[in-house]
Amino acid sequence: MRYAFNPSKRVLMGPGPSDVHQRVLSAMARPLIGHLDPEFVQMMDNIKTMVQETFITKNMLTFVVSAPASAGMETCLVNLLEPGDECIICVNGVFGGRMVDIAERAGAKVYKVDTEWGKITELSQIKKALELCPKPKLVALVHAETSTGALQPLEEISDLVHEAGALFVVDAVTSYCGVPLRVDDWKIDAIYTGSQKNLSAPPGLSPISFSEAAVKVLENRKTKVQSWFFDLSMVKNYWEGAKRAYHHTAPVSSIFAMYEALNLVLDEGLENRWARHNEVHQYLKNKLEALGFRFLVEEKYRLPNLNAVYLPEGQDEAKLRADLLNQFNIEVGGGLGVFAGKIWRVGLMGESCTRNHVNMLVGALDELMVK
Amino acid sequence: MRYAFNPSKRVLMGPGPSDVHQRVLSAMARPLIGHLDPEFVQMMDNIKTMVQETFITKNMLTFVVSAPASAGMETCLVNLLEPGDECIICVNGVFGGRMVDIAERAGAKVYKVDTEWGKITELSQIKKALELCPKPKLVALVHAETSTGALQPLEEISDLVHEAGALFVVDAVTSYCGVPLRVDDWKIDAIYTGSQKNLSAPPGLSPISFSEAAVKVLENRKTKVQSWFFDLSMVKNYWEGAKRAYHHTAPVSSIFAMYEALNLVLDEGLENRWARHNEVHQYLKNKLEALGFRFLVEEKYRLPNLNAVYLPEGQDEAKLRADLLNQFNIEVGGGLGVFAGKIWRVGLMGESCTRNHVNMLVGALDELMVK
Repeated sequence: MRYAFNPSKRVLMGPGPSDVHQRVLSAMARPLIGHLDPEFVQMMDNIKTMVQETFITKNMLTFVVSAPASAGMETCLVNLLEPGDECIICVNGVFGGRMVDIAERAGAKVYKVDTEWGKITELSQIKKALELCPKPKLVALVHAETSTGALQPLEEISDLVHEAGALFVVDAVTSYCGVPLRVDDWKIDAIYTGSQKNLSAPPGLSPISFSEAAVKVLENRKTKVQSWFFDLSMVKNYWEGAKRAYHHTAPVSSIFAMYEALNLVLDEGLENRWARHNEVHQYLKNKLEALGFRFLVEEKYRLPNLNAVYLPEGQDEAKLRADLLNQFNIEVGGGLGVFAGKIWRVGLMGESCTRNHVNMLVGALDELMVK
Repeated sequence: MRYAFNPSKRVLMGPGPSDVHQRVLSAMARPLIGHLDPEFVQMMDNIKTMVQETFITKNMLTFVVSAPASAGMETCLVNLLEPGDECIICVNGVFGGRMVDIAERAGAKVYKVDTEWGKITELSQIKKALELCPKPKLVALVHAETSTGALQPLEEISDLVHEAGALFVVDAVTSYCGVPLRVDDWKIDAIYTGSQKNLSAPPGLSPISFSEAAVKVLENRKTKVQSWFFDLSMVKNYWEGAKRAYHHTAPVSSIFAMYEALNLVLDEGLENRWARHNEVHQYLKNKLEALGFRFLVEEKYRLPNLNAVYLPEGQDEAKLRADLLNQFNIEVGGGLGVFAGKIWRVGLMGESCTRNHVNMLVGALDELMVK
């Protein structure tokens, strides 16, 4: 042993990863099987079904990208966009900004809809953008901004987007399995998420799904996707059909973990899981406000599972956050971008979404905060 | 429980993944820590050092791509190539072909050096290519072709490449930690590999390393890398320097696994590990030849850890391979590309490289083969 391996036992209450259930951890400790083993192929089929169930979609093109959610974002955008395409992207935090960067690298002309961080994009803003860009190929936005804790309503925007003949692309990284999300009902054409937040599997995988309309766009591309790894025209042959064409070696152990995490979600029931996230959020909210924390986001657009809060006056956020980690093994997240050093992001996601977690955090804060 | 999780206990003797040591499996079953936790940052530093030691390099830009080896291939090529650049890529199997595809998507003009599958690229072929393309930006080839089991000598080609002022790019997916590989001594400018072969960690990660000359090329790019996820100018800020800028959520559990797998390699010693792969290969070779199998690759260019073999006459490769899996839980690989249905690929990699593995396989074959 040259480098000791002794990770501490942390309580994960940041923006992800969240705590992972023992059943999921144990699944990862199982000996591997081959990525073309008939048992693994069956497992991929089951995962596809479970991802469909959790996205609430019948989309045939539904599977898991073998890389983190940022790669899922890139997969969705670079497959749908070709050089010269016009699109509208809403930006109210880090991840909307990342979508713009990716779309521009793919050669698209991006019409940005900028909104103050912590607020949601209003319908009127999309209408205005559609006046400047009346025939966008797609309109993309973030359902739950991990950098601010804002939860974006989607249904009315979806109608507007489809009236314009565009595809509706949604980042569901922090909403999936934590708050209501109905891909088919809300007519979402392309969606991606990650494994490590409300699903509570380890980070590293990105479930995605494409509607029939989106699949038609993929099939009618005039140019090759710039990326080999993200090109769905090839990777989908590994996830679909009678003959599973080798594409890349799937991350077998991570798939084992996701398999069990999805089973846990379906055992609990999606609606129960959404309700739990909301209930524990209320429990946290009352206690944090009693300690003097203030929420960044207006109540009706507040993401229950990612609580962006200003600290009470007189508290040193960096020191308090380090003390929580070092003295109580509790991780909460700092701010990103314009909110760096200004807010905390307290995650209540998946296995980390329990009243016991809230009480651990509040008890530690009570001990550590400057009185 | 809606979908049972009961993977069989397989004996992995295909082209990867290979068997994984219990210490590595147990590491993955450890509760997660955050991807920005100081303990995790320390772990990334240690992994960087261990990857440097196993590549035998002092390259500062050495780290792990959060996706499978194919993504590592893409990372190397799309960061070094810009539209209009000329390069030479040697193709003697599936993975050389994949490099060509990726380089062309990046807008490069590729001079292909084609060699019959199962053979190595000769120095004279590179010389000829350099006449057609005297100033390539890079010359790329595969050290160990996983599709054929051919082991490419690198040192003389490296000299030739550097005389032409080009960067030398090497795919080490199936050679890393299994056969001699000396990145600095052999003046390799960019190299990528995977986690799941001789390293015997689960698939899903790709260690890479860039020389100073390659870093200069990265720094002098005129255009943005087309891919956000693979753009080293950003991801390296997460792996290096005093302030670790958030880029994407690292696959924490997979990193835990790789950490322990690297420790196991260094405990054994690289040279001992290379010797073990060679010894067990000889042990397998004698027994397979006694059963009537014939090797595809000429003896001096034969990869010890991936044995590409023709079956004895009268054996049905697909049936025999399925019987091995179904009756003995032993996985061997079939042929890829032009060798599909024609050869087997028997892996002796990492934890799967023991005489016990050979004897399990040979005993099962003796039972199953048509006499």
